[in-house]
Amino acid sequence: MTAEPADLNADELRAKAVAAARGVEPFDLLLAGGQVADVITGKLRTADVGVSGPLIASVHPAGTRRDALKTCDAAGMVIAPGLIDAHMHIESSMVTPRTYGETVLKRGVTTIVWDPHEFGNVWGVKGVIWAVKQAGLAPLRVLTLAPSCIPSAPGLETSGAEIDADSLREVLSLPGIHGLAEVMDMNGVVAREPRMASIVQQGLLSGKPIFGHARSLTGADLNAYAASGISSDHEITSSADLRSKIESGLFIELRGSHDHLLPDFVRTLLEYEQLPQTVTLCTDDVFPDDLSESGGVDDVVRRLIHYGMPPMNALRAATLNAASRLLRQDLGAVAPGRRADIVVFDDLISCKAEFVFLGGVEADQLKIPAPTFGALPRAMSLRPFCSEDFEVRSQSRRVRVATIDQPRFTKWGEAVADVVNGRVLAPIGAIRMAVVNRHGSQSSPKVAFLRGWGDWRGAFCTTVSHDSHNLTVFGSDTEDMAVAANAVLAAGGGLAVASDGAVNALLPLPIAGLVSERPVSEVGASFKAVRTAMDDIVTWKPPYGVFKACFGASLACNPGPHLTDLGIADMARQTILASPVLGAA
Amino acid sequence: MTAEPADLNADELRAKAVAAARGVEPFDLLLAGGQVADVITGKLRTADVGVSGPLIASVHPAGTRRDALKTCDAAGMVIAPGLIDAHMHIESSMVTPRTYGETVLKRGVTTIVWDPHEFGNVWGVKGVIWAVKQAGLAPLRVLTLAPSCIPSAPGLETSGAEIDADSLREVLSLPGIHGLAEVMDMNGVVAREPRMASIVQQGLLSGKPIFGHARSLTGADLNAYAASGISSDHEITSSADLRSKIESGLFIELRGSHDHLLPDFVRTLLEYEQLPQTVTLCTDDVFPDDLSESGGVDDVVRRLIHYGMPPMNALRAATLNAASRLLRQDLGAVAPGRRADIVVFDDLISCKAEFVFLGGVEADQLKIPAPTFGALPRAMSLRPFCSEDFEVRSQSRRVRVATIDQPRFTKWGEAVADVVNGRVLAPIGAIRMAVVNRHGSQSSPKVAFLRGWGDWRGAFCTTVSHDSHNLTVFGSDTEDMAVAANAVLAAGGGLAVASDGAVNALLPLPIAGLVSERPVSEVGASFKAVRTAMDDIVTWKPPYGVFKACFGASLACNPGPHLTDLGIADMARQTILASPVLGAA
Repeated sequence: MTAEPADLNADELRAKAVAAARGVEPFDLLLAGGQVADVITGKLRTADVGVSGPLIASVHPAGTRRDALKTCDAAGMVIAPGLIDAHMHIESSMVTPRTYGETVLKRGVTTIVWDPHEFGNVWGVKGVIWAVKQAGLAPLRVLTLAPSCIPSAPGLETSGAEIDADSLREVLSLPGIHGLAEVMDMNGVVAREPRMASIVQQGLLSGKPIFGHARSLTGADLNAYAASGISSDHEITSSADLRSKIESGLFIELRGSHDHLLPDFVRTLLEYEQLPQTVTLCTDDVFPDDLSESGGVDDVVRRLIHYGMPPMNALRAATLNAASRLLRQDLGAVAPGRRADIVVFDDLISCKAEFVFLGGVEADQLKIPAPTFGALPRAMSLRPFCSEDFEVRSQSRRVRVATIDQPRFTKWGEAVADVVNGRVLAPIGAIRMAVVNRHGSQSSPKVAFLRGWGDWRGAFCTTVSHDSHNLTVFGSDTEDMAVAANAVLAAGGGLAVASDGAVNALLPLPIAGLVSERPVSEVGASFKAVRTAMDDIVTWKPPYGVFKACFGASLACNPGPHLTDLGIADMARQTILASPVLGAA
Repeated sequence: MTAEPADLNADELRAKAVAAARGVEPFDLLLAGGQVADVITGKLRTADVGVSGPLIASVHPAGTRRDALKTCDAAGMVIAPGLIDAHMHIESSMVTPRTYGETVLKRGVTTIVWDPHEFGNVWGVKGVIWAVKQAGLAPLRVLTLAPSCIPSAPGLETSGAEIDADSLREVLSLPGIHGLAEVMDMNGVVAREPRMASIVQQGLLSGKPIFGHARSLTGADLNAYAASGISSDHEITSSADLRSKIESGLFIELRGSHDHLLPDFVRTLLEYEQLPQTVTLCTDDVFPDDLSESGGVDDVVRRLIHYGMPPMNALRAATLNAASRLLRQDLGAVAPGRRADIVVFDDLISCKAEFVFLGGVEADQLKIPAPTFGALPRAMSLRPFCSEDFEVRSQSRRVRVATIDQPRFTKWGEAVADVVNGRVLAPIGAIRMAVVNRHGSQSSPKVAFLRGWGDWRGAFCTTVSHDSHNLTVFGSDTEDMAVAANAVLAAGGGLAVASDGAVNALLPLPIAGLVSERPVSEVGASFKAVRTAMDDIVTWKPPYGVFKACFGASLACNPGPHLTDLGIADMARQTILASPVLGAA
């Protein structure tokens, strides 16, 4: 559902709401007996709420009106504005927009700001247009953005697509597109590299907001990034970073995906005399099992409250502040004239949604046509793999190889490796990573040696592999790597874990190799099974989850070496190493 | 100056700002040594501010950059965002937009939201288009609105113009028009009277904000007013009213024109845990001498601080909150990427502006073409008056007459009056008021008797007479009334005080009978002379000034009897009494 403010302009709709407010006509819906969470005053106020069509018509003293076609008993409960997720990627939850909406709407999330960056990376402009269409079939308000950085590492990998400034101009002009999504190529922005400069310009010219990704930016570069016209950031990594970003004037999308940082952020925000009105909340990425079990931005609200944020501030960030940031004065408060996006919570500690209304319609009464996916392009057409595909070859007996040391914040390393029968053995303490282009014609996987990933006895294959989502395999054993890769191939995309020559767990993601059309419970359970299977084959247990390391290991736009389908790429040096073999040892 | 957010989108402008932020190029302007008033965090922060073209490029640690084409020494001072007046009528200051801008810009007011309601009332759509053009020649950012209620009392007076929904649609589509101005016909809105309903609909359809005037609305009617799509109010009359309007979700334009209410409003706002982010500030109406001596919304800020509002809150209301209400993320904060509308105050108590920059240009360096008014229509073409014009005639010896009792909140009264030579003498304790249409062909003045206006020994004539601005005369002596009226006639519009057959004070207002093109000091001095002359002829000294009572005495859209050019009108009864004579006594 992509309803615009303009949907509320129909004469008959306003006439009906005005008449209902005055008692000339009954309300369509009356929320009675509860307390309104007034995010404007910061107070809980005993009041009833009258709804007419999609509009809140009246907030009035309890019990003074009883004429309504339907009454919702909110006694003892809190009537709050629907929650707004200010920045997120549905693809991270590996379900369709429809399923995502069904999952979070009943928890009180009524609006999400979706960057369909992954569909864009795989399918390009067509993927973004497809996303807008799917957003319209989701049972919540989806403000879809135009991805800004596709590909994120041009020249360093074979991407599924490219979206240049010209294409972006057209995409940004679509009414279903609400802004330019997180501008990740920060160097391109501050160095005023022509491609990024013209992309940011298209964002400005569209008159729609430009969302940021200002990872680790400080000082002059942070000023430059904001001066370019980008107006938000969700990449907050520390209290000092949070303070400096708030002071920069950027809107803050405080994100739930990095839970370990939240307690510190709560403490930092409590140091201010009041919550800065530029602070909004977001999920960014939620894995399917977390989505199924804990929800979306409602869970971020809950956790912030748990960590000590005053409940009204958590709510204000997720409602009024977000609406203001999004230039949507029809959203964000329980007040007459605004849209009846309302969640009735049991209280403001557990924040359990007892009733949810989207544009005045109760969540389970929404009539939205079922999405059809029709003939989607196949996620890939690759021939099956064999173990040989994951070997590194050399004529020498012993070689020096380049290694990628440390997950995430990667560094170049070097090791000596033996060669047996023309095949380079993994250096001590190293595992293998392989990437093969899945967006074009068949080519051979490129292979690298990773250190710092613990011991593996098996393999993991994924078609979720940022940003170009080429087929990516990790493992210690080339046979298992082939088994895992072939399982993913047969599933038309997805995740698979294999060991001892057999598949241990599989999550098929046939839509773009990113997403499943199965129910969230099923996708969540399969994802959990993959998690468990991973625990069995990998000794390494990073706090942020081994998946994040795997999904991001090919992210060549980040500093340091990253393996792509072309080899080991280094953004800063603008080099690609086709084979890790540096020479004879 | 009506600069839109889009003015900041030029590629070269952003490129220059980004380069300046990074130190690759020098700043055009550096504000050094001061403290930034950070309205986002609510803190004063020692920092320097670098400006590039119209943009703030950088806010950085003091002294870390010195490369700038020009440096402004802000040592010991406070660098604040330019002030925003969220609702006002330039006409009330009786000067041109150009003069108004020159007067307030140097005091730190960089943006005003102007409802050219009075020009609209006199000149109709042409007047609004003229206003947009004049706004473009004023040295500050003028967001001109489309007046919504012209005429305000259709059928009860001869107005200068009518602006219907169809005309409004065209006016609202102009890029120089930023919203629909205060919707004063509250009854029309909540009763869904077709004319007002369609006017509000045009506002909604334009996608621009609709500004309110919710005088005395409470309960169901207040809900209905907000449900119609109108989103603000400045007609706050008490603390209870303020609380209820804040809770209604309307944006509040706290106005300075009713100074006696402000101390109470400050106390009320201090009861909230934080200043609601929906609270903005406005002047509404400022008389020319007050403008000349005390300024515009800068004076509202100063007075609120004087009455106990924390300075940062007063500032936040007049900057960040206003920018948010106006959907202008380019305004309202001293932060990179925002517009360099900046005022450097000596401190946050006296709030004396030491330097002011509009779009990065220092106030006294602005190059704006001088306005030309060309051949404006004459304010009126009436023949000179004689004392007979202000007589009420009757054939009886003694008559019962209707009276208008009490200024402002008028009531019907009745009295007995003697008739001498066919002329009705004023009842005891009553003065005369006369109104004549100045927008069309000559007609005879209509006359009424007012009680509760004190004793007069002379007369006052004005072409500023809300809302239709017909020529209006008050007095005890019909000879003096003719003298005052003829003085105004000869001046082509304006204000005049006469006694003993001579003119005591005159302020010519030849532009539309509302405004002078003379400097503010001159207009202010003349206005003050009129004030003083009034003090000499009227014993009555109401706290809100006798002018407000005079200027509003013909405002037939208000409840109670009001004299218009057609007679004594009563909005509620929809009646007009052509003569006050009710019958023989």
